[in-house]
Amino acid sequence: MNTFGTIFRLTSFGESHGEAIGGVIDGCPAGVLLDFDFIQSELDRRKPGQSDITTTRKEADKVEFLSGIFEGRTTGTPIGFIIRNSNQHSSDYHNLKDVFRPSHADYTYFQKYGHRDYRGGGRSSARETISRVVAGAIAKQILKEEGISITAYTSQVGAIHLDTFYTELDFSNIEKTPVRCPDLAVAEKMIEIIHQIKAEGDTIGGVVTCVCQGVPVGLGNPVFGKLHAALGSAMLSINAAKGFDYGMGFNGVHQRGSELNDLFLPPASANDEDLSFLPPASADGKKFKTKTNHSGGVQGGISNGEDIYFRVAFKPVATLLQPQPTIDKEGNETLLQVKGRHDPCVLPRAVPIVEAMAAMTVLDFWLLASSHE
Amino acid sequence: MNTFGTIFRLTSFGESHGEAIGGVIDGCPAGVLLDFDFIQSELDRRKPGQSDITTTRKEADKVEFLSGIFEGRTTGTPIGFIIRNSNQHSSDYHNLKDVFRPSHADYTYFQKYGHRDYRGGGRSSARETISRVVAGAIAKQILKEEGISITAYTSQVGAIHLDTFYTELDFSNIEKTPVRCPDLAVAEKMIEIIHQIKAEGDTIGGVVTCVCQGVPVGLGNPVFGKLHAALGSAMLSINAAKGFDYGMGFNGVHQRGSELNDLFLPPASANDEDLSFLPPASADGKKFKTKTNHSGGVQGGISNGEDIYFRVAFKPVATLLQPQPTIDKEGNETLLQVKGRHDPCVLPRAVPIVEAMAAMTVLDFWLLASSHE
Amino acid sequence: MNTFGTIFRLTSFGESHGEAIGGVIDGCPAGVLLDFDFIQSELDRRKPGQSDITTTRKEADKVEFLSGIFEGRTTGTPIGFIIRNSNQHSSDYHNLKDVFRPSHADYTYFQKYGHRDYRGGGRSSARETISRVVAGAIAKQILKEEGISITAYTSQVGAIHLDTFYTELDFSNIEKTPVRCPDLAVAEKMIEIIHQIKAEGDTIGGVVTCVCQGVPVGLGNPVFGKLHAALGSAMLSINAAKGFDYGMGFNGVHQRGSELNDLFLPPASANDEDLSFLPPASADGKKFKTKTNHSGGVQGGISNGEDIYFRVAFKPVATLLQPQPTIDKEGNETLLQVKGRHDPCVLPRAVPIVEAMAAMTVLDFWLLASSHE
Amino acid sequence: MNTFGTIFRLTSFGESHGEAIGGVIDGCPAGVLLDFDFIQSELDRRKPGQSDITTTRKEADKVEFLSGIFEGRTTGTPIGFIIRNSNQHSSDYHNLKDVFRPSHADYTYFQKYGHRDYRGGGRSSARETISRVVAGAIAKQILKEEGISITAYTSQVGAIHLDTFYTELDFSNIEKTPVRCPDLAVAEKMIEIIHQIKAEGDTIGGVVTCVCQGVPVGLGNPVFGKLHAALGSAMLSINAAKGFDYGMGFNGVHQRGSELNDLFLPPASANDEDLSFLPPASADGKKFKTKTNHSGGVQGGISNGEDIYFRVAFKPVATLLQPQPTIDKEGNETLLQVKGRHDPCVLPRAVPIVEAMAAMTVLDFWLLASSHE
Repeated sequence: MNTFGTIFRLTSFGESHGEAIGGVIDGCPAGVLLDFDFIQSELDRRKPGQSDITTTRKEADKVEFLSGIFEGRTTGTPIGFIIRNSNQHSSDYHNLKDVFRPSHADYTYFQKYGHRDYRGGGRSSARETISRVVAGAIAKQILKEEGISITAYTSQVGAIHLDTFYTELDFSNIEKTPVRCPDLAVAEKMIEIIHQIKAEGDTIGGVVTCVCQGVPVGLGNPVFGKLHAALGSAMLSINAAKGFDYGMGFNGVHQRGSELNDLFLPPASANDEDLSFLPPASADGKKFKTKTNHSGGVQGGISNGEDIYFRVAFKPVATLLQPQPTIDKEGNETLLQVKGRHDPCVLPRAVPIVEAMAAMTVLDFWLLASSHE
Repeated sequence: MNTFGTIFRLTSFGESHGEAIGGVIDGCPAGVLLDFDFIQSELDRRKPGQSDITTTRKEADKVEFLSGIFEGRTTGTPIGFIIRNSNQHSSDYHNLKDVFRPSHADYTYFQKYGHRDYRGGGRSSARETISRVVAGAIAKQILKEEGISITAYTSQVGAIHLDTFYTELDFSNIEKTPVRCPDLAVAEKMIEIIHQIKAEGDTIGGVVTCVCQGVPVGLGNPVFGKLHAALGSAMLSINAAKGFDYGMGFNGVHQRGSELNDLFLPPASANDEDLSFLPPASADGKKFKTKTNHSGGVQGGISNGEDIYFRVAFKPVATLLQPQPTIDKEGNETLLQVKGRHDPCVLPRAVPIVEAMAAMTVLDFWLLASSHE
Repeated sequence: MNTFGTIFRLTSFGESHGEAIGGVIDGCPAGVLLDFDFIQSELDRRKPGQSDITTTRKEADKVEFLSGIFEGRTTGTPIGFIIRNSNQHSSDYHNLKDVFRPSHADYTYFQKYGHRDYRGGGRSSARETISRVVAGAIAKQILKEEGISITAYTSQVGAIHLDTFYTELDFSNIEKTPVRCPDLAVAEKMIEIIHQIKAEGDTIGGVVTCVCQGVPVGLGNPVFGKLHAALGSAMLSINAAKGFDYGMGFNGVHQRGSELNDLFLPPASANDEDLSFLPPASADGKKFKTKTNHSGGVQGGISNGEDIYFRVAFKPVATLLQPQPTIDKEGNETLLQVKGRHDPCVLPRAVPIVEAMAAMTVLDFWLLASSHE
Repeated sequence: MNTFGTIFRLTSFGESHGEAIGGVIDGCPAGVLLDFDFIQSELDRRKPGQSDITTTRKEADKVEFLSGIFEGRTTGTPIGFIIRNSNQHSSDYHNLKDVFRPSHADYTYFQKYGHRDYRGGGRSSARETISRVVAGAIAKQILKEEGISITAYTSQVGAIHLDTFYTELDFSNIEKTPVRCPDLAVAEKMIEIIHQIKAEGDTIGGVVTCVCQGVPVGLGNPVFGKLHAALGSAMLSINAAKGFDYGMGFNGVHQRGSELNDLFLPPASANDEDLSFLPPASADGKKFKTKTNHSGGVQGGISNGEDIYFRVAFKPVATLLQPQPTIDKEGNETLLQVKGRHDPCVLPRAVPIVEAMAAMTVLDFWLLASSHE
């Protein structure tokens, strides 16, 4: 239940205030010359304390690789890695020992396991996603060599939303602001609302949009192995995620088939150079593009060579810096006053996590599709 | 890739115009006295030709059980079953042999597999979901004995949407209209729009809402085994599904934590009789209810004893009864004129499929949670 | 628990005296033109009543394919199939309703499931292996196109054993006698002992040896995905199997490393034409042969291009045609007098089952190795 | 491929001469107060340099737990752990960079992965089994609380074999000699032969026998989930293992059914106090014992409450301290002169590894059987 993937598999471990966060990547192809600087830069995009709109917890989040790599290259054997927790203020949490924080996993973990590490949410903390970012960075690097890119950005914070379709956006703007919205004017408004929410000791939700480009035709499987279902499951595994849709998604349900169907472009008008190419399965079929891409790059669970795009909804962080009434495990009422360091809005830091999960999913399906299935 | 579940597992097979649709249910508990009338009644809710707002294909959809049942009771061994296809008009599809229907899986299957059964969409047809309804009916029966119910309904067709929260609805109205919306006034409008769309040879999308009641605390797992992620994956495996959210989902992203957090009810105000109870894991912890349920019954991936509710977005059916330009596998342009029988709107028939997938998922997690994990 | 394999997967169902035995093959490559006569001929090698040294139950064992095949070729979608049981004498078993036959699964099934189909052993009957032979025949056909052959034979019946190493045997003799031993003189002795045992109402065990030829270098994985461990698990899943070894196995434990190590042949002396070749992973490495093959074709869990050979031990059939004392489920002593039709020795019919399981295993690993792992 | 188990799962990583060996244990029940001294004592039974009949490599093999444990108790979340490699003499292996050692995995790893860590065998080294011993020690502790014990011993070294059936042995003698054979006279002969072999720079194989006592009725599943097949697969995953049999195994094939069948003991003669008891599945069935246990405690893949016993064959270690001719990756002939430190016989150190794998397997099946399957 802590393992993700079929061929490229991440097994994750670690608690927020334990010794270390870590993981094991199994099924990584051999011979990949890893770009350790890139891996660290991805961790830096996720790490706390990176700007004044995130938590102030300071962590170096330096990854130490323990196996599976020899002379800088992967060997095909499992890649074990750890990231030591350093800036733990465990004492911040001592008053939470027997208290259930509202809309947190404290109560459900206690009911399920009886004995739990309550410090900072323990296993339910989003610190666990460090492992995913490490594995996702490696997946991204392998995909990049195949011409596949994964790009996510913040498309909504509270009521501020970016209405521009992704094809009209300049992705190089994403990292220009701490909120990771590529429309700089909208980004400014988002940052403003986060500052305001933070000042009030409150939190706010939002939406991340993600685009996978260069994915070849043929990834995914019918029925229970659909590519979009795997992406949905991957996204819903992220802390605070409450929804997923792809293509026109929830916004397309009121439309008619005649509006939403993606008609094929006759080959004369297609740019052959742009067609992505997967050697094994599809060597014999001509590739075609579609005029529109309302489907979001997947038909019948299988990628069709168009861009895959989807949205992930995130709820506001449950931890507030204002008092909340709650109960302890005996049912006694108490007033919760949180002393820890917390994000007023997860969206900026969710962006690299969404990318990591998407990269692992696409790579896993790419490896599967490259077998003789 | 055609198997669903971990303990309670459905392996599905069959094409729209092949010999039979069928499946194997593995991991079903032994000793269950099956209610065959109930199983058939669930199939009847899914079957084509049930009303004038569905396809006119006529199929008896009678299930034949081949194994795993002795003297009417399950034996714990795999339950094999088949449903013969009878009303196949394969000749309707002969002109589709080399043509790719827009927004269908024709092109992606052809690219992936080379050789495909093009008749009626073959494996990509929603006829495959018959197997799911059989397995779901058995899962529902087992869950019912544990006090768990699964109820879905049509909450949106095109622009017509039901805004009432599920707690205010009378579920006994669901089966009173062919569109399966429990608000009879809204149902009437939905039926009207479907008739209109059908007359135009067009199609329309919509939303199904599903509620799981009586689910005990403790189902689901942290990180990659989250209950809501499994529900999302299950729903996104249904034909034409484009999105999933649970609790406040996409509608909650603009709200603040202070609005959305679910505060606990002190035990004095809770009705102890109502608390669901899962014996093995949680014998020692007091159960608590929450004042609101914006979370949708899951915290940190684990059920908290509140109702689980979620939405599934469905796109309009891709097959239109009006001409559409498309191409064949050589890239030649052609005009597609469909002769088959098709649904103008999948929503009414999607309702029992959503229930079936939810029932299988919840039962599977219930069986998992009952182990000594 | 009724599914075998990772990419090429068989899910099996059916009881000895139920409606049908069947299965679903998932992950079969698309585009394979199936040889239905070959599949049936493999079933005929397994079926009862084929000679006077097997049970006299008469079954046509004709397979009906229900899906996954279009115009004679596989489509990559799951292949559902059934074999109707016809020659059931269920009444033979009515006296066994509450009785536990010694060294059968009656007692363990009853303890585990409570409710069971006692007729003919139900699910624990070797009739279940029909499904395996169907899937194995398809696997064999695919392997054959890759130059891989799977050959098993009876190497021991009771105290009569074949001491000749497989390289000295003429495999074309295997099907010349009903006992399937390629040394015709030894076969004669085996048949004689089986006749004698049968006349006494007793049963006898034996050993099947299996050889996989043409397996390329690189199938299998380190640690928990070893090829020989998968073969062992596959063989031990066969009814009455009690042991497995490969290469020199149990017979090599008293030897020294200096005797048993397989030294490499310098390339000059190797016949390059003979080297098997797996394109994706091993394009860059020169292939080498070894002087001896005491290892049995696997080093560190991965095939080395030499022949893979292994043995499977089978116990004597538990059902005797002589009276045996036993107890019923209340613990009352009773005398068991079996009326059914049974094999005095499973070895002859185990040969095609061993081959089927080996073929599925090797194909599955071949498909896995052909991915970008 | 580096993950073992279904509910109780070990994911293993690490190379012989890398930074660390480690693993992640997922699915461990929550609330277990771990006995860290016991875990270390199990590691000490496996570690190198423990006697003059093992390798002289010196490793502390101290385990560091990183997660999943809070205040000494398991929390149900994954237990990450590492063991640093300290006594690496990597330079010993530099001359092996391009050379394939006979009957090692050098050639197959090179063919499969291209790039490999050649130092000390890298991933193919038995140092990897440290992870298994850690997980096995935890499994043993949980099983012990359920009254289940796992005991292995060396029953053969070269031609010296212990013929006494396990019921006649005094298990408390096992740890009295470094060879771990409970018959002290036989142990002495085994030690003598190992000394002699070592002096000659050669190696020798042998057999480990393992007994699982107190296993309740009902563990395991029909067809592809048989308990003995899982045990076989587990054992064959151990380095140098070449064979597995259970019950009478290969030694029973020449016997008759009338000799080998295990007749039931009428309940009057059974000692009720001795009957093992599994609450969930088997509450309603009376338990019975058998007069003999030729079956080895498993019928039809499911434990029957008798002792489970099995044998594992180990080949002689492939690394010799005498010169061997071999080739390098270009096919050039060379004389191999090993400088590393190696075991003349793996048997003594294999004993705790066999126990660890057996404990993980039995616990996993016990957890599975305790679900509502």
